[in-house]
Amino acid sequence: MGSKDARQPLLPTSSNTLETRVIDIPRSKRRLRRTKSAPHANSPTEITRTSNVPATGPVPRSGLIFGNLHPSFRRVALVLIIYLGIGTLCFYLVRYQIKGEKSNGIVDAIYFTIVTMTTVGYGDLVPNSPSTKLLACAFVFSGMALVGLILSNAADYLVEKQEILLFKAFHIHQNGHCDISKEIDTNKARNKCVVVFLLLLLFIISGTAFLVIIEKLDFIDAFYCVCSTITTLGYGDQSFSTKWGRIFAIFWILISTITLAQFFLYIAELNTERRQKSLVKWVLSEKVTDIDLEVADIDDDGVVGAAEFVIYKLKEMGKITEDDISPVLDEFENLDVDQSGTLSISDITLAQLS
Amino acid sequence: MGSKDARQPLLPTSSNTLETRVIDIPRSKRRLRRTKSAPHANSPTEITRTSNVPATGPVPRSGLIFGNLHPSFRRVALVLIIYLGIGTLCFYLVRYQIKGEKSNGIVDAIYFTIVTMTTVGYGDLVPNSPSTKLLACAFVFSGMALVGLILSNAADYLVEKQEILLFKAFHIHQNGHCDISKEIDTNKARNKCVVVFLLLLLFIISGTAFLVIIEKLDFIDAFYCVCSTITTLGYGDQSFSTKWGRIFAIFWILISTITLAQFFLYIAELNTERRQKSLVKWVLSEKVTDIDLEVADIDDDGVVGAAEFVIYKLKEMGKITEDDISPVLDEFENLDVDQSGTLSISDITLAQLS
Repeated sequence: MGSKDARQPLLPTSSNTLETRVIDIPRSKRRLRRTKSAPHANSPTEITRTSNVPATGPVPRSGLIFGNLHPSFRRVALVLIIYLGIGTLCFYLVRYQIKGEKSNGIVDAIYFTIVTMTTVGYGDLVPNSPSTKLLACAFVFSGMALVGLILSNAADYLVEKQEILLFKAFHIHQNGHCDISKEIDTNKARNKCVVVFLLLLLFIISGTAFLVIIEKLDFIDAFYCVCSTITTLGYGDQSFSTKWGRIFAIFWILISTITLAQFFLYIAELNTERRQKSLVKWVLSEKVTDIDLEVADIDDDGVVGAAEFVIYKLKEMGKITEDDISPVLDEFENLDVDQSGTLSISDITLAQLS
Repeated sequence: MGSKDARQPLLPTSSNTLETRVIDIPRSKRRLRRTKSAPHANSPTEITRTSNVPATGPVPRSGLIFGNLHPSFRRVALVLIIYLGIGTLCFYLVRYQIKGEKSNGIVDAIYFTIVTMTTVGYGDLVPNSPSTKLLACAFVFSGMALVGLILSNAADYLVEKQEILLFKAFHIHQNGHCDISKEIDTNKARNKCVVVFLLLLLFIISGTAFLVIIEKLDFIDAFYCVCSTITTLGYGDQSFSTKWGRIFAIFWILISTITLAQFFLYIAELNTERRQKSLVKWVLSEKVTDIDLEVADIDDDGVVGAAEFVIYKLKEMGKITEDDISPVLDEFENLDVDQSGTLSISDITLAQLS
């Protein structure tokens, strides 16, 4: 959950895909070449595999079931399947040490695993022997970690896919063409909130309808059971008790609890983004004094260049810190073989010779 | 929870407090002045109040109970108290519409509020009328939001306080003096994990001991109830049923569930930090080519200065994006009144005249 720090969208953003390296810009009023964007790191395999790092290039399409999906998503899906497999096997084997309302052996085992991993914990099925209790403890801790993994890797990726689909559909409907990348980018956090909120509504309605129709609950009880489930409260006075109810619950509980958690994450992201924006606005509107110039002047030449100004302001915004800059400056000094205070082709040539 | 993005420690970090503006460094091999750090934004009141933004200057010490605590922490504490107050009042008023094991009217109302807001949901007390069920739904959603608020604001602040205390004690014990700021800073994420893990152990042990001694559970059941509670699973076959048990539970459940969630957040943060470090290492070790120089040259003067190099590399590391840089460059062009491509005292004077 906290891995949000460096969470990068798994899909390439416009700053990578749309902006090309424009090198010959005619000198005009706008002297600074802002369209050049540094290529995002072609991270070494070892880093790419651990995800959360901007992925570049086309994703290798291997496998039929997961084809067209991002590797980190496939990894999470695989871990989930293994977890559910082991959980089901374990709880099936100890099924006579679990007391409560039973339906079908296998279904109950999967249902119990899901209810445990999502921490819903209705209590309609409870472990009834010391070893089963300890097994449940092990599964709830690992389940929490797994849900965290899903939230920090796969969920965001799926929401972005949904978002693009939704906006494409909406825009094609509205004006026939779809220049949506920009639209999606500008209000990223807000759009994600909207998409997840719509999904959540869908899950609440479908869950309530299912409980009314199949489990024969009255409307208030069904809605109450839905709320109690998606928040992982799970008092357990209302739960899924029929075989078909539990089969539905297996999928529905997993998806809906994760969707609600993701919704809260996006709300927080939206708040952060708004706060960041107002901080950026404030830092940029602040008056620049000669003390600022003195401090911003990294190479000590008495004037502040565009890049020095950018670094100074980004530090004020809290986007970068001295700790980020120091190692890069060290590297710069190593590369500056001719000690001119700037890097040029001659430095590279000298470095290659030595 | 997702507000981790721009989450800044509430305590000033060494980059703000320890590094002073050293302006006259003798020119030696080390030509770049890296000790200068941009003062962290003296954010306007409106931003400071919304927290998550680096706080500067001494925190105003108002109030006796919360004196010496950060404003954003006090705000969260206030919201929590209001929430618990309203929750207790509501559930006390509808106490005859709640069925289950009762102990004492007020204690049960607070206990039910806590069990609901943390989504533990044992089910030892459950709402028994449509209106009470809807009330519980309202309280669980707002409770989740509140727990998120605590996690993203107050918890981190408290852990840092604990961390400093712990390391101070440890260091004074070891070598009599305490130059710990550096030590704490270098392994921030790891230290926080350790501190929270120790707290968690303390809560698990105290909870288990309490359940064995006061609630007379056997050891396995007590441990199982503790695990089921801190993970918010709350099957409800084992819970707090005596009056004193519930009074203990009120505090213990709130603190221990938040501690476990925070522990997972720190683990994720630690992973992100490690990944970030290996990405930084890789980006810095990458060979610089003439194409890199071409792209890095923001002011188009044919050479790459230290600041331009820093921006290029930070972009490669994914720490900043073109979207962060563009508005600052715009501001730079506005400030560069004499259109020299650099900012100097003359630009400031010209700006003041016009």
